Parts: sequence; C-alpha cells; structure tokens
Amino acid sequence: EERRKGYRHILKVQLARWVIVFMIGVITALIACSIDICIDQLSAIKFRIIKYHYDRCMLIGCMSVPFFIWVSWDALFVGFSSILVAYGEPVAAGSGIPQIKCFLNGVKIAHVVRIKTLLFKVIGVAFSVVGGLTIGKEGPMIHSGAVVAAGISQGRSTSMRLDFKATEQPSSLRYLINFFLSQIFEYFRTDQEKRDFVAAGAAAGVSAAFGAPVGGVLFSLEEGASFWNQGQTWRTFFASMVSTFTLNIVLSYYHGVPWQLNYNGLLNFGKFDEISYSGFEIPVYAVMGVIGGLLGAFFNHLNYRISVFRRRYIFRRWSQVMESMLVATITTVVAFVMTYMVVDCQALGKDPIEHPLQVFCHDGQYSSMASLWFQAPEASVRSLFHDPYGTYRPLTVAVFGFAYFFLACWTYGLSVPSGLFIPSLLTGAAWGRLVGIVIKIMFPTAQWVDVGKLALIGAAAQLGGIVRMTLSLAVILIEATGNISFGLPIMIALMVAKWIGDFFNEGLYDIHIKLMRVPLLPWEPPPMTHNIRAKEVMSHPAATIKIIERVGTVIDLLQTCNHDGFPVIEEDLPVAQREGEIPGQGLLRGVIARSQIIVLLVNKVFIGRGQTAPHVNMATFRDTYPRYPAISDVHVSVRERELFLDMSSFMNPAPYAVFDNTSMPRIFKLFRGLGLRHLVVVDKFNQVIGVITRKDLARYRFESHKGNVRLMEIPITS
Amino acid sequence: EERRKGYRHILKVQLARWVIVFMIGVITALIACSIDICIDQLSAIKFRIIKYHYDRCMLIGCMSVPFFIWVSWDALFVGFSSILVAYGEPVAAGSGIPQIKCFLNGVKIAHVVRIKTLLFKVIGVAFSVVGGLTIGKEGPMIHSGAVVAAGISQGRSTSMRLDFKATEQPSSLRYLINFFLSQIFEYFRTDQEKRDFVAAGAAAGVSAAFGAPVGGVLFSLEEGASFWNQGQTWRTFFASMVSTFTLNIVLSYYHGVPWQLNYNGLLNFGKFDEISYSGFEIPVYAVMGVIGGLLGAFFNHLNYRISVFRRRYIFRRWSQVMESMLVATITTVVAFVMTYMVVDCQALGKDPIEHPLQVFCHDGQYSSMASLWFQAPEASVRSLFHDPYGTYRPLTVAVFGFAYFFLACWTYGLSVPSGLFIPSLLTGAAWGRLVGIVIKIMFPTAQWVDVGKLALIGAAAQLGGIVRMTLSLAVILIEATGNISFGLPIMIALMVAKWIGDFFNEGLYDIHIKLMRVPLLPWEPPPMTHNIRAKEVMSHPAATIKIIERVGTVIDLLQTCNHDGFPVIEEDLPVAQREGEIPGQGLLRGVIARSQIIVLLVNKVFIGRGQTAPHVNMATFRDTYPRYPAISDVHVSVRERELFLDMSSFMNPAPYAVFDNTSMPRIFKLFRGLGLRHLVVVDKFNQVIGVITRKDLARYRFESHKGNVRLMEIPITS
Repeated sequence: EERRKGYRHILKVQLARWVIVFMIGVITALIACSIDICIDQLSAIKFRIIKYHYDRCMLIGCMSVPFFIWVSWDALFVGFSSILVAYGEPVAAGSGIPQIKCFLNGVKIAHVVRIKTLLFKVIGVAFSVVGGLTIGKEGPMIHSGAVVAAGISQGRSTSMRLDFKATEQPSSLRYLINFFLSQIFEYFRTDQEKRDFVAAGAAAGVSAAFGAPVGGVLFSLEEGASFWNQGQTWRTFFASMVSTFTLNIVLSYYHGVPWQLNYNGLLNFGKFDEISYSGFEIPVYAVMGVIGGLLGAFFNHLNYRISVFRRRYIFRRWSQVMESMLVATITTVVAFVMTYMVVDCQALGKDPIEHPLQVFCHDGQYSSMASLWFQAPEASVRSLFHDPYGTYRPLTVAVFGFAYFFLACWTYGLSVPSGLFIPSLLTGAAWGRLVGIVIKIMFPTAQWVDVGKLALIGAAAQLGGIVRMTLSLAVILIEATGNISFGLPIMIALMVAKWIGDFFNEGLYDIHIKLMRVPLLPWEPPPMTHNIRAKEVMSHPAATIKIIERVGTVIDLLQTCNHDGFPVIEEDLPVAQREGEIPGQGLLRGVIARSQIIVLLVNKVFIGRGQTAPHVNMATFRDTYPRYPAISDVHVSVRERELFLDMSSFMNPAPYAVFDNTSMPRIFKLFRGLGLRHLVVVDKFNQVIGVITRKDLARYRFESHKGNVRLMEIPITS
Repeated sequence: EERRKGYRHILKVQLARWVIVFMIGVITALIACSIDICIDQLSAIKFRIIKYHYDRCMLIGCMSVPFFIWVSWDALFVGFSSILVAYGEPVAAGSGIPQIKCFLNGVKIAHVVRIKTLLFKVIGVAFSVVGGLTIGKEGPMIHSGAVVAAGISQGRSTSMRLDFKATEQPSSLRYLINFFLSQIFEYFRTDQEKRDFVAAGAAAGVSAAFGAPVGGVLFSLEEGASFWNQGQTWRTFFASMVSTFTLNIVLSYYHGVPWQLNYNGLLNFGKFDEISYSGFEIPVYAVMGVIGGLLGAFFNHLNYRISVFRRRYIFRRWSQVMESMLVATITTVVAFVMTYMVVDCQALGKDPIEHPLQVFCHDGQYSSMASLWFQAPEASVRSLFHDPYGTYRPLTVAVFGFAYFFLACWTYGLSVPSGLFIPSLLTGAAWGRLVGIVIKIMFPTAQWVDVGKLALIGAAAQLGGIVRMTLSLAVILIEATGNISFGLPIMIALMVAKWIGDFFNEGLYDIHIKLMRVPLLPWEPPPMTHNIRAKEVMSHPAATIKIIERVGTVIDLLQTCNHDGFPVIEEDLPVAQREGEIPGQGLLRGVIARSQIIVLLVNKVFIGRGQTAPHVNMATFRDTYPRYPAISDVHVSVRERELFLDMSSFMNPAPYAVFDNTSMPRIFKLFRGLGLRHLVVVDKFNQVIGVITRKDLARYRFESHKGNVRLMEIPITS
C-alpha cells in the first residue's frame, strides 16, 4: 500500500501526527481546566456555607449544624462519585496509572481508553475532591490524557457511536469534514500507533497536572517505552508543551490575570525563591529519604492488605459505594474532631487563608489546624511549604500528618477516581516540616534550617517511598517547584527513599498491577533464567492453521481457542525425516491474526468449486480496528463450511520465530524490544512445535522481600 | 555460569554496577575540574601579560608588542594542541560527540574510548581554549566522560598496560586489591555492558559540562539508547548527579567559597532571577527560532563544504597543524582589529570585567568590544546574557556575532579538540541581543523587552539550528539557566529552529557522521522500504562454518573474510529436497563470533585422532575482550591444520534469524531493538541463504533536502 502512494503520502501522515498531538495537548488541558474550575467553584460554595454556620454556631452553641452539613455534603458527593464508578465504569476507579502502565506495556484491559471512562472519571474526581476525600485530582489527569489521545488518534468513539471516517453521503458539508478527518485518522488504527499516541496523551496529562512537560515525557518513557524513538519522543514533548501552555492561558484568564502565565499546572507548589543549601545538609536529606522509604513501604504494605481485604469482601457494587461514603464520613469526622481538639491559634492576615476558621481562638486569630483541613489539599501542601516558621506547632503537623497517612492509605483503592500524589506529598510535607521544627528547636541558631525546604524534601521522600518512580518523579517535582538549584537534594531524597522502600516491597502501582494479575512484562528478563529454554516455556502443541484450510475447521478452531494469532503451516513434507524430541506440527509459513481471520470470514473470502475469492484490501481490515466481531457473531452456512480459506495473501509471511533451545532472556528481549504478543517456536527444521505468549513469560517473576530474592511463578489471568 | 553462582552473585554484580557508576561520576568531574582550573590559570597569565603591554603601549605607541605577544601565544598553544592530535591521536579531534554517537549506536571506531585519547583530548582542549580559538571545553567533556566510563568499567587500559584482574602473585597486598577489583570488573567485559557504562559516562560528562544531570541522561538516551531500560537509566542518572555534585564541591573550594555549591557545571549562565514572559511574546520567540534555524542550516552547509575541502586537501599531518595555527592567528588578528576599529566605551566598575582594556577610551572607561574578546568565551556568553541594556552598542554585537559565526564555522573540524556548544551559544547570544536592542530602539516603551532574555533565546535558537538535538538540548539549557519558568520559550525557539533547519539539511553531528561513512542506523526504518525484502539486502552466499570443521579450513576462512560472526551449519540433509529460489547452504544450527573462534584457535581446542579438546571456560573468552589477537597472529602447525574444531559447545545455538521474505522495516526493528550486528537469513527449510550486516542496512537512507525527499543508498566504509 505504502509503495503505491509515494512520498507525499508519507509527509501527509507525518503532518497528521503533529496535528493530532497538538489536539491531544489542547483537549487534555481543557479537561484539566474544567476539572479545576469545577472543583474551585464547588469548594468555594461548600466552605462558604460551612464557615457561615461554623462562625455563627461557635457563638450560640449549635455546632452539630455545621458538623452535619459538612458530613452529609461530603458523604453525598463521594457517594455520587462512587455510584458513577461502581455502577458506571469500574475501570475509572483509582488514579488509572496502573492501568495506563499496563496499556503502554502492551496489555489490553477492557474499557480503559473509552470516552465513557473519561467522562465518569472527570466527574467522579471532581466530586470526590469536593467531597473532602484525602485524594488529588492530578493522577486521574494522566488517565484522562491517555483516553483523549486514544479517542482523537482513532477518530472515533465506540461509546459515543461516532466515527470520523468518510461516510457514504456525498454532497454535504459533513462529508467534506469527514473526508478531511478520515485522511488524518485512518492510518493510525493499529496497536502500535495507538499506543504511541496514548503515551503522548499520558505525558500531556502529567504536564497539565504538574506543569511539568519534561517530567511528562519522562513519565511516559519510564512507563511505556520499550523502544526509544526520537520522533515519537519529540512529538510527546510537543503534546506536553501544548498542554501546559493551554492550561496556563485558560487558568490565567480564569484567575483574572490573563497573559501572566503563572499557572503552569493544576498543582502549584508556589514560588521557592531563596532556596539554597550547603553540602553538609546532604546527609540530613539522605536521612529524610530513609524515613520516606520506611513510611512508604509501610504505606504500601498496609494498602496491599486493605486491597486484598477489599477484593475478598467488598466486591458488591452497593458495598463499594457504602465503603466510599463511610471513608468520606470518617475523614470529615476526623477533620472536625481535630479542629476541635488541637488548638493552634495564629494571627489573621499574616498568611493568605481563604476560609479562616476561628474555632476556639481569640478574635483576630484563626486555627491553623482548621485551615489545613478547610481548604483543597493542594493548598495545604503550599501552606506547609511556604508558611513562615511558627505558623504550625509541632503537635499540629504531627497529628495532621499521622491522620492523613492512614486516611490516604485507606482511601486509595476505593471505587472513586482518586490521585495518590497529593496525599503522599501532603503527608510527607507534614512530617518534613515536623523534622524542620524539631531541628530548629534543638539548634535554634542553625541558619540553614528552613521548615518549608524540609517540608519539600519530606514530601519528595514520602512520594518516592510510595510510588518508587525515579527519574520522572524527580523531574516532575523539580518542574513543579520551579527551582532547579534544589534539584540535587530532591534527587537524593527520592533515590534513598526508593532504595529503602525497594528493600521491603514494590511500588504501590506495581502492587496494584500484580493484584490485577495481568501479564505485565518487567524491564529486564528476570535473572536466573538463563537455563530456561523456549521449549520449557511454550505451550505445546500450538493451535495452527494450514495455508489453505476448510472454513469449518477454522471456525471450530476459533471457537475453541482464544489466541490472538495462529501460526500458518504447510504439511507436505515427509514427517519421518522431521522428528525431533518434540513432534513438529508442520513447516512454519507465516502467522495470521485472529482479527484478520474473522474479517476474512465476515467478508466471506472463500474459495473452492471454481470460485475466486472476493477482493479485500487493507482498508477493510483497518475499519474493524479495534473491535472486530466475536467469532460467535460470524454466521456461515453449512455449505460455506465446506469451502476453503486461503491465508497466503493475508498472513504475515515472515513472522518472528525462535528455536526451541533459545534461552529465556533472549525471548524476553524480543518481546520487550519488539512489543510482541506471541512468538512461534520452531525446531531446527523450521517445524512449528509451540507458541509462547506474553502470559507465558510474565509468569516468571523475580521477587525481592527484605533482602531475600527468589524466582517465582505468579498466577496470571486476563 | 550464572546458574552455578546463585543469587548472591547477582546482587554482587548489581552492587558493582553502582560502585562503577559512582566512580565514573567522580572521575569525570575531577577531569572537568582540572581542565577548568588549568584554563583559568593559564588564561589569567595570558591576559595579565597582554593587558600589561597593551596598557603600557597605548601610551607610548608600541602596539605591535602586545599584538605579537598575543598572536604568538595563541599560535603556539593551538599549534601544540594540534600536534598532539594530528601526530598523537587523530580521533581526539573535534568535540567527540559524533564518535560517541556512533559508539553508542553500536559502530566500532578505533581508539575512540582509549585512555590515550582521553589524555590528548584533555590537554589539547585546555591548550586550544587558552589559545583563544572560538571553541568551548564542554563538548570534549562528553567524550572524556565516555572514555572514563569505558576504562573504569573494563578495569584495564590497553594504552597504559594495566589490567586489574587477579594476577598470579598471591601473598601480596596488590593481590588482594586486584582480587577485589577483579570481582567487580570481570563481569562487564561484554559489548552490551560496556556500552551501557559509556552511556552513563557521556551523561556524566554532559552533567559536569553544563550542570545538567537530567539533560545528561536525556542526551545519552537520545543518542545511545535503542532499548529503554529503567535500571540503566537510573544508574545513568546517579552518575550524572555524582558528577555535577563532585564538580560543584571542587570548584566551590577552588573559587574560595567552599560548600556554597554555586558551581553546578563548567558552563554557568549566571543567575536569571527575574525572567518572566507574557503570552504575546511567544510569536517573537518563534520568529527567533526561524532565524536560528536559517543561520544554523547555513552554518552546517558552510561547515560541510569546509570539511569536504579539508578531507580532500588537508590530510597531511603537518598541514593540519599549519591550518590550526593559521586559524588561531586569524582569530587573534580579527579580535585585535575589532578592538581597534569598533569603539564602544563603557564606564568602569559597572560590570565585573576581569581584564578591562581601555584601548581608545577615556580614563575610567573600558572598551566593551575588547572585553568580549578578552575573556573566556563562557564569560562572554554570561556578559551578553546579563550585562544591562546599553552595555553594548548595536554595531558592537552585530560585528562580533558576524565574525564569531564565520570563525566558529571554520574552526569546527580542525584537528584540535573543540566543542561546538559555546561558539554556537555565543553567536546566538550576540544576534539575540541585537534583536533585543533593535526592538528596544523601535519601541522604547515596551516593558517586556529584556536584552538578556532575548540573547538567551537567540543562543538557544542558534544552537538548536546547528545541532538539532531536541529534548535533551532543551533540558540542558533549562538546567544551565537554572530557571524553569522560562522553559517554554526555550523549547519553542529550539523546536522551530529544528524544523526550519531540518528543511535544508541535517544536524552538524549527523553531517560529520555521514562524512565518516560509518554504518550508523537511524531511529526508524527508512520509509518506502516495505517492498525491500531480506533476500535483496543480504550478502549471498554467506561465509559459513560446519559444526565440526577442519582447523585449516577455519583459518583460511578467517583470513579471507573479515566478518565478525559466522553461521554454523549442518550439511547432512538431502539437498535435492531443499532447493528454493536461492540455493541453501545447509541447516542453520548456530552462530559463532570471530573472537570466539580465535580464542579456540589460540588455546588449541582441537579434536581429532582420539584427542579430547582441552577445557576452556567463560573466563578465557572474557579475558581477551575487547582486543583478541588478529588471525595473522595465530600460529598453527601443518599437523594441527588437519585436526578439527567442534563449535557445538561454543556457538550460540539459538541465533536470531529471519526468513528471506522479511521486509526491511522488520529487519531494521530487530537490529535497532536488539542491537544486532549481523542477522542470518534462512529459507523456509531453515537453510542458511545469506547474512545481513549493519552495513547492508545503513546503506539505505532517507534524504530530505529543501522539502524534497528521496530514498538513496549511501557509501559506507568502516
């Protein structure tokens, strides 16, 4: 096909790629903006109402009124969000990062990049945040960006029944638009192209969430790339830039400072102007990294236990909604009780608090504990970073951090859309600031101790200890801080936190991926597998198809075997000479995908009794991507079952294949490097003797637990 | 082998990797520091002497004295540097970045990572910079880091005749040290491991040069990675961090402010505190990107012509030295004449000029043109970025930029070590500042015009237009600026410059790689090659070896054929049945490397006449890496020629192979994704019919010139 269309065609496809990533960037940013504005408006209403009753009731003693308003507001919003997810689209729960990791790794998860998922995720995360859960809106942005990318690049949506392909109604404007769009979209309907765009979308999401375009690119590389491609990276970067720039323009406009461009991302750490550090502080940061690693590992362990419990006992939809509402209620109760119990009064006007609560403080003062709970968590992170020394008493940050840690741990994994970044940062900022305050009390003359700076390190260490992302996380934090000179301390804290955490368990996303039991391939072949050979890993005998095969046989095969691809064989060889240890099944001639066979069946491309097969071209195959009919939807008459299918012009005639004695690491490299899903195993006579799938490989995992390592086989379902 | 040693061994190797990258980071930084300090000291002497005579002679009219001192100093230093390179180690010339790109791509270039190269490069670059050439010391740092990495990771140096492997003298301290070291080093003597460490070293070099650890990682990924590996990336990042931190400590100490840690890299852009921008400035930056792209393309074209001329006419060593000295002289003359002709006087004391020259200015003033020439180029970049508006008249920067452009273009490619970054940045900063001054003159009330800011954009655009690196360059500049909020404008300028430049020609490094005629594989398979099949690309017939082959036959084969690897075949099959279109050469059973055969020959692992072969283990093969003897050094008696070699236990029994009808893009993906050097082509009966090497693939290039694209075959020698 490419041969026919020439160079102009190639240039057009190139250009189309750039147009699509531009659109991905813009739309991802617009979605981020609407979430942000929505949360901003709703939260303002919530806090205004509660503050009104709070202030009123402090005087006349009707504190149950604001309490019940607060609790029921939170429970209702979170409940609604949870209903959307539990009954609407369960895959919209959580941050979506594990799912996107799997998708980019080549594992198909149902519904993960559908528009419906996006819609429920966006509404759900806004409602959950407004409902006061200990979550962030940033993680879900990555998932949103990925869905946007999948939708735009494919130019259609199954959920919305749209398909921007040339329709058959000429002579209308719609036709013209469609025709133009179809020229763009048609060529990207393959797994590889879709995955590339989704990686760009995820990067745009990170970029919008944290104002971190470089971090976004690194994120999508770290999670998605198995094969580095300069052009693709550059386009991903472009999508990220467009995304942060669009968001910046829109939010600057919304906040009444058009063209000031101070809003790089949803999460804004505020300006650290005067951060500086000396060499002797490095050990302090390393120690904070250790703390972050330990706390992170503990967090992950606890969350793992909770998740296992949840899988076992809370799998009914209504019970998931109930649990979400329960957590929302308890979070609110904890917040309410704390504002009551911990009295930490500060003079008003010193800091820009939007909704200061007086509680038990004197007039002209506000409770700094209340203010931590009584604003968006992003704002609390900023407060802990920037409020001057003395704003919070040690007890305040200690109690706050302690409570937030456990609440966040319980919350992650509820069936609501929820980000993990903000709660981790907030917990870390709390104990980091506590460390700063303690050092300041112990050494009152130490000039270098800046509680905000230490809060930042604590936040980095805590986040690093939980998610264990490395380079991308460092860059995201550096970009969000807007201060590069403090990069080294952040990197050190992250690195130490990762090392310490990895000693105990895996990162939280990886834990959740393992709980999903999907065949995710790790970065490197597991060690100690040099002695495992292809013939030990493969499934044998392979489900094969002859080059010219009876239609009935093919249908029966597809009905009994759910493989994605089948080796095509030729049998006309003296079998006697071909015997190896494992009996061969015929000479390997190619591989044909399940989807291709089904398209052939649907279009009845049969031969036999003097008929020639109808013509089918590439476009026919592309149109059915990605959701070709199930084999049960293919209807073939009894007479047609006796006809034949000729695979020779449709199969891939030069499939990747390995010999039976190829070692595991080599097979692994092929899968990772080339993004394979299945691989044919042949003997030395090029006879098919088996097939290796991704699942066969992913079974082998290298476990590290408290310094002990072992090779194990894990259960995979898909 | 791995099987035998168990998990402790794996952990030890892992730990050893970290230790090695730590050492790479430290040593790279120390080398960078010594270059810097050396240049600093020598330049101070030079400028002090010249200034003394200059000031003295302005009064009594003996201007020829400082002129001759200046010219002869520069010619001598550059001449010495050029002699080192031309007579000592020609591969030390230039920035070394094209060579490192090739190395990381898998192309072997002789001497590129030898200690001797490093030594000559380091001394050479210091002398060239002190000799006043329009070059930077940053590019060579990348090469230096790579050599350090290769040397350390292999634990030995051929040039220095050192080998940190366990020796046979027990009972000595040396033995203990050696034993410890050998435990570390022994396992990394393979191409793959070495390349990974070299990538880390290059990153450490970038990091030391620009204070850009993240940029360093991205650089080595952009240039070297064909297969993304999280662990490897993380180690690379660690090396970069260690490098910038070490450099920071040493240079802070040297400059008398220990522990202040203000010296992140050799190149320091100085602190941009108050940079801010509004949305409407974006088009201005885009236009500057266009200018940078055009100027860059022109620079590359000119340098290409000069390089071709040089290759044709200036290939003798003495003529290379002469040319270098000529360029040095002319550069100095230009500088001297300019300080004379362009009178631009500024009040002293306003700016921190180290060696102010009065020239024709009044007392208490200095010539700002003279100051641009009369300091290290890095300092001039800083001056153009930070000196307040009015420091330079438009004519000054225009003339300076113009002269620097052509001088830099002539200089790059001389046989001296020389970096391209600084001259590009300086040229760009000059015209960028000029743009700023012109806008300021036209719109005197425009508040947003900051000449320093526009100089920075100009520098980015010019550099982007010349080298066309994308993501890594953006990050390097952002990190060097230390200001992340100005990232977007830099990215836009770079991106536009790349697009415009790519319309005309390739990046300068790629042009020089093409001139070297090495089989570098591009990122993606060239388009329009779907119809090219393996059988059209392969060499046929392949040089093959039988599983058990007569020693004499093997030696004859190695002497006549310089391939790196040979397919091992089995011939005991009825040939009649095996005929395809292309006659098969026997059943493929494995692949054996040239080096392995030679080790077998040297160790006389022969069988025949009842003898059994002596035992050879993995360590024997590893010891000879990377320089195994030539076949001409293998001496075998006539009787031994009649014995046999048994390949079966040494060959790779499961080589990657493709069918004859595999399409070019698939073959390409295999080479890039798995880092192959050769690939066996088999027919459908698994009979060897040919071999594809890297060279066979690299011949196909996709050319773009002024918007026209075509597929061409380029000549490759190696």
